[in-house]
Amino acid sequence: MSEVPPVTLDDVRAAAARLEGVAHRTPVLRSRTLDDLVGAEVFLKCENLQRVGAFKFRGAYNAISRLPPAQLAKGVAAYSSGNHAQAVALAARELGTTAVIVMPADTPESKLVATAGYGAEIVTYDRYTGDRVAIGEALAADRGLALIPPYEHPHVIAGQGTAALELLDEVAGLDALVVPVGGGGLIAGSATVAKGLCERIRVVGVEPEAGDDTRRSLAEGRRVAIPVPRTIADGQAANVPGALTFSINRRLVDEIVLVTDDDLRHAMRLAFERLKIVLEPSGASALAALLAGRLDPVPRRVGVIISGGNISAVRFAELCLGAGQAGRP
Amino acid sequence: MSEVPPVTLDDVRAAAARLEGVAHRTPVLRSRTLDDLVGAEVFLKCENLQRVGAFKFRGAYNAISRLPPAQLAKGVAAYSSGNHAQAVALAARELGTTAVIVMPADTPESKLVATAGYGAEIVTYDRYTGDRVAIGEALAADRGLALIPPYEHPHVIAGQGTAALELLDEVAGLDALVVPVGGGGLIAGSATVAKGLCERIRVVGVEPEAGDDTRRSLAEGRRVAIPVPRTIADGQAANVPGALTFSINRRLVDEIVLVTDDDLRHAMRLAFERLKIVLEPSGASALAALLAGRLDPVPRRVGVIISGGNISAVRFAELCLGAGQAGRP
Repeated sequence: MSEVPPVTLDDVRAAAARLEGVAHRTPVLRSRTLDDLVGAEVFLKCENLQRVGAFKFRGAYNAISRLPPAQLAKGVAAYSSGNHAQAVALAARELGTTAVIVMPADTPESKLVATAGYGAEIVTYDRYTGDRVAIGEALAADRGLALIPPYEHPHVIAGQGTAALELLDEVAGLDALVVPVGGGGLIAGSATVAKGLCERIRVVGVEPEAGDDTRRSLAEGRRVAIPVPRTIADGQAANVPGALTFSINRRLVDEIVLVTDDDLRHAMRLAFERLKIVLEPSGASALAALLAGRLDPVPRRVGVIISGGNISAVRFAELCLGAGQAGRP
Repeated sequence: MSEVPPVTLDDVRAAAARLEGVAHRTPVLRSRTLDDLVGAEVFLKCENLQRVGAFKFRGAYNAISRLPPAQLAKGVAAYSSGNHAQAVALAARELGTTAVIVMPADTPESKLVATAGYGAEIVTYDRYTGDRVAIGEALAADRGLALIPPYEHPHVIAGQGTAALELLDEVAGLDALVVPVGGGGLIAGSATVAKGLCERIRVVGVEPEAGDDTRRSLAEGRRVAIPVPRTIADGQAANVPGALTFSINRRLVDEIVLVTDDDLRHAMRLAFERLKIVLEPSGASALAALLAGRLDPVPRRVGVIISGGNISAVRFAELCLGAGQAGRP
């Protein structure tokens, strides 16, 4: 490891300046009902209310905005079936360039439409026979496009860190920050901010129980790959930490806690009925960890990143009102 | 009518000072997707994110906080099966007194539990044989309680106006403000603020098509009672304007537009899927009017009061994913 960290607090501050007036400064919500349930003062940073419905817009925009002008003119590419697809599509449009997004042919229609709606060209592939990385790289090379990775890039990580920067700027004296972990970009940026501003703040990552690759990797001190996880948290289905994100997270993340799919469903329903906000499963994971009592000790004053809210009403009902759920409180 | 209006901009400002640090200063949300759909710059004042999930907390707290100390010590009463019940219960608790809430015996369990959860005593009655006004008044007289009306009181109206005050303080240059109308308290307070700050701002009320008592009353220049409306917007089921609210609204409200139950369902689903927020039917009515193209001409820059979000996930699914809804875009 080099002595200079790949992403610094100043990098995140610079990203925040680029995002000013482009990304939403999302609200920090409070709920005394939630505080009572958790036994702490809880501050929810609502990136489900961000543009494209997830924090991903921050990283994508920051990364694309830092491309050299000649590259920016040629355009960008990305492979994603999730929020990163829409984030890159919208960020490219905002920056006056074009995006090509490689998506599985069986991506839900609504996501294809949303991504195309931001002006991106969609290239589909068969997820069972195709290799999205190879397809994306070949396409980018052929057309001279810059490939925007979902987390393995310092500019993406710096962009993701701006949500935590806004939260810590607005709320003083947090003793913990709880952050969803997928590929590790959001928590790498968040931890860079948290530890940069206040060494003693506890940074807790949350993974689905079935997808605990980062927890295992931190425990073993090396990147551990696990079988592709089966979880409703599709935004956290990574099966191995990124090399770059892991190099940051092993230094800065204090612990990883796990949540079950039922914990996620419960948190999503509580967010709907008590907080009046819509969360997708991965977006609910940090809140779910608090509600399920996974943090020991319980922090006194805790920031929670709500990372996204992209879920259809039909899918929400299937998950949260389906068999075995209707009777839950 | 007296020369001095029953509620002034200064009354609302005084209410705002009392609510400081007690009510949430709710966020004003933006969505470019929504702007594109409506063809305007839309600013959503999200009172669904207010304490108790609705603007009602503002008016209840302001009214109770202004009771003489001797009366405050004796306690308060209210009759409501809706958001006003929880608002009075919580406001009473916050102000260190007790509340008795008269509610129909068949009120949904969740609302009874929520109201009791704020420490209120619940008195139930049979809605088919009992008269809630008579019961509430008798009970208040018997026990020496102050009856807190849902809208027919200057202190309630002044409290409700604080949401619009926050919105207009935060967003300059609005040319219209669109507000749900039930008994007329929210729009009376909102219009007092809007016209007090800027004479040219257009104040538009929204009623359900089946419950257009205020529209008719404004057209006829007198309070018109209609049959009790059948609408999913239970917060807007008033069948005659209040005497006090009507005296204000006839002076200050420019027009009333109507929305159908299908317009409400569509707005609720769009709010869920695109805005990531939960709205109850009456809470969605101002947004629904914009989305359904009921404002002519379409304002250029428009504030919308989202008045509440109290709906269970099960009821939301029934309304928005039920027969005839699943196929809607």
